Amino acid sequence: MTEIPDDVVALLSKPNPAVMATVKPDGTPVSVATWYLWDDGRILLNLDEGRARLKYLKANPNISLTVLDGDSWYRHVSLQGPVTLEPDPDLSGIDRLSRHYTGQPYPQRDRGRVNAWMTIDRYHVWGG
Amino acid sequence: MTEIPDDVVALLSKPNPAVMATVKPDGTPVSVATWYLWDDGRILLNLDEGRARLKYLKANPNISLTVLDGDSWYRHVSLQGPVTLEPDPDLSGIDRLSRHYTGQPYPQRDRGRVNAWMTIDRYHVWGG
Repeated sequence: MTEIPDDVVALLSKPNPAVMATVKPDGTPVSVATWYLWDDGRILLNLDEGRARLKYLKANPNISLTVLDGDSWYRHVSLQGPVTLEPDPDLSGIDRLSRHYTGQPYPQRDRGRVNAWMTIDRYHVWGG
Repeated sequence: MTEIPDDVVALLSKPNPAVMATVKPDGTPVSVATWYLWDDGRILLNLDEGRARLKYLKANPNISLTVLDGDSWYRHVSLQGPVTLEPDPDLSGIDRLSRHYTGQPYPQRDRGRVNAWMTIDRYHVWGG
């Protein structure tokens, strides 16, 4: 597992703005803003089961996640690595993310969700 | 050229936080925070000539750009399309971006820069 310095862990531990990039089967990239959660060296993401992104991730599990420092986005960190997908039948995954960002459980309860656990292979920090 | 609605143009016209995604030759994505500039239907980006990203773009010019609304990042837009690279010998490209974000010309004058002009093939807006 890639060792992450404490100051980067501190940045990753906050509910910061983040953008996730995946690659489509045609080799073009797709990016979208996302919630993420640092969990002891891994990153938890969560997707609606109907997202095209989920299909892309099954074909190519490699993602890149850029986290912006919410206080000053000139400080940012990008992480690369593969995700492992798992169902989130009781919505506990999306609820963890929702509570982290909003303080509340996720409001929409009638859609299937999928956890995507990211292993961090590489990271790069900008802006000290 | 893809028609962009006025409210999205308004969002894209501001110096908002943004993240650019490219694809490496091994098929994995890379994302990084970036300055961008809306210029009458195209997007101007600018890279240091030494960036690995530049090499990736020569091999695969397709990018995705996610722009966050600086006032509330729950509103965001993602754009996809190819870039065309051109030298920026007088640094006028990076100066345009720097003035847009900081009000000042780009401070570092001793590094070669490259403009990347993005054609917008597709876009998607979240958060109204």
